[in-house]
Amino acid sequence: MNTPKKVNICEVGLRDGLQNEKSMLTTDQKVELIEGLIDAGFKVIEVGSFMHPVKVPQMADTDEVIKRIGNPEGVELRALIPNLRGVERAVKCGCKKVKLNVSASRMHNLKNLNRTPEESVAKFAEVCEAALAAGIAISGSISMPFASPWEGVTPVEDVDSIIEAYGKVGIHEVSLSDASGMATPAQVASLCAHVQEKFPENTWWLHFHNTRGLAMANIVAAMDVGMTQFDSSFGGLGGCPFVPNAAGNISTEDVLHMCEASGIETGIDLPKVMALTRKMQEMLGKEDLSSYVLKAGRNADLIAQMAE
Amino acid sequence: MNTPKKVNICEVGLRDGLQNEKSMLTTDQKVELIEGLIDAGFKVIEVGSFMHPVKVPQMADTDEVIKRIGNPEGVELRALIPNLRGVERAVKCGCKKVKLNVSASRMHNLKNLNRTPEESVAKFAEVCEAALAAGIAISGSISMPFASPWEGVTPVEDVDSIIEAYGKVGIHEVSLSDASGMATPAQVASLCAHVQEKFPENTWWLHFHNTRGLAMANIVAAMDVGMTQFDSSFGGLGGCPFVPNAAGNISTEDVLHMCEASGIETGIDLPKVMALTRKMQEMLGKEDLSSYVLKAGRNADLIAQMAE
Repeated sequence: MNTPKKVNICEVGLRDGLQNEKSMLTTDQKVELIEGLIDAGFKVIEVGSFMHPVKVPQMADTDEVIKRIGNPEGVELRALIPNLRGVERAVKCGCKKVKLNVSASRMHNLKNLNRTPEESVAKFAEVCEAALAAGIAISGSISMPFASPWEGVTPVEDVDSIIEAYGKVGIHEVSLSDASGMATPAQVASLCAHVQEKFPENTWWLHFHNTRGLAMANIVAAMDVGMTQFDSSFGGLGGCPFVPNAAGNISTEDVLHMCEASGIETGIDLPKVMALTRKMQEMLGKEDLSSYVLKAGRNADLIAQMAE
Repeated sequence: MNTPKKVNICEVGLRDGLQNEKSMLTTDQKVELIEGLIDAGFKVIEVGSFMHPVKVPQMADTDEVIKRIGNPEGVELRALIPNLRGVERAVKCGCKKVKLNVSASRMHNLKNLNRTPEESVAKFAEVCEAALAAGIAISGSISMPFASPWEGVTPVEDVDSIIEAYGKVGIHEVSLSDASGMATPAQVASLCAHVQEKFPENTWWLHFHNTRGLAMANIVAAMDVGMTQFDSSFGGLGGCPFVPNAAGNISTEDVLHMCEASGIETGIDLPKVMALTRKMQEMLGKEDLSSYVLKAGRNADLIAQMAE
């Protein structure tokens, strides 16, 4: 079992987490949380999205949030965008990194959008051109590259073909997102090894939902084959689009603790994150969060307590 | 990443789970659950313990439970015992398999029992003799072989030395039990590979608590290096002896689902187990259980639902 020396963790709670919450945070509260994340050491934060405000009202103030935070040295503030309008909004508010998304399910795409995932990606060409012309970096996410409710296990050829389509429009930073929480560790290891070998020019992110309790095992499986960039959500905020009330993203505290206890460097201060997550919990008025370490404390805390 | 073709899952909820619950089940209820587990396909079940009834009142009827179940063909009913009295009770009620336990923490043992873990194991000699003389199989558990609140990471030499001590009293079936939930996947893989190489004559069980959300990743790490026997608890019943209200054992449903979705054979019917866990939940009057699959359903259920 290989463990990397160092990994890069992107906090996605402000986007993938909050968009699943009924309570809305104010712009002030979001700014306070993001400043706390930066202070804790995060170098990549997904702060919101430029979706239509009627569709995702929780993200309507993403422009304002980014304006308020500015561009702190060495920190990448990422926003999800659906289309060209997203780039325009990014330009206006000074956002320097945007992310597109496509579902890997051929069946889902054909049924809902009447086009294949590759055709969806090809349509991103003008979005990419606009972003690059404006000096905005752009990455691409692939939803359900491991398995989907429509296909079951996603054929590897389908994933390859989407990655190739992304490459054709100039996107070489690709996120594999198990949004349905159906991936298994062996499958993750296999697909991650495959794409790294087949697309050596690419960089990768992994994004796991803990819907069926497998997210941490999937992260470890991805690390075993050399992956080093992972999304997580403070307090495990988030949900599963297909299962109401299911668990959300893997919790940031649990991932950071696994790294800390395994000697994997993250550059992030876990106790600061735990305090910030508690603050977020108060802001949202949530009774419970899906975070083990928030309840049980760190290994290091227990050892210190016994030594007293 | 290696996945075994087939694994052996032992349900420990009736023992490690129920002993952490305030509500007590009746003997009838326990028998009903155990019969359900056998019907679902379990071949090894830890049904209780022969601890002093004043110390662990939830387990006071273990003798009666075993008498009631009898010895179904091909099923091993296991009970935890503390000492010679445990063997006497096992003989009387017809229990055919008992398990001893020792903590791997040298510091903990010396402080509380004024002896080393090896000295504790050596004192089991008469217990083993009595068990073997009565035709009762016996195994040995090692608590906190990966890490403990006292030592932090447990020195591998300490674990080796306890396994050797078990071997000297005739015990070659050894369970590595992360009761404090502090183990990390890389450490699990490393220790599991090591003990299998050093003690090739032994058989092994792994027992993980999900205190800090790492149990599933630890199981997968152990499987990667060839381990195939795992404890789990229906509904994730159980607790952490050092952290009140922390998560308990890894849930049986989640382990079975991981196996099912990964093509690993268990011989156990997951939908039957899920129904039984819901029955147990009603019996205990518990509002919530730590089981992801019980909330989200199986991958296969979601795929079937979409195909409708």
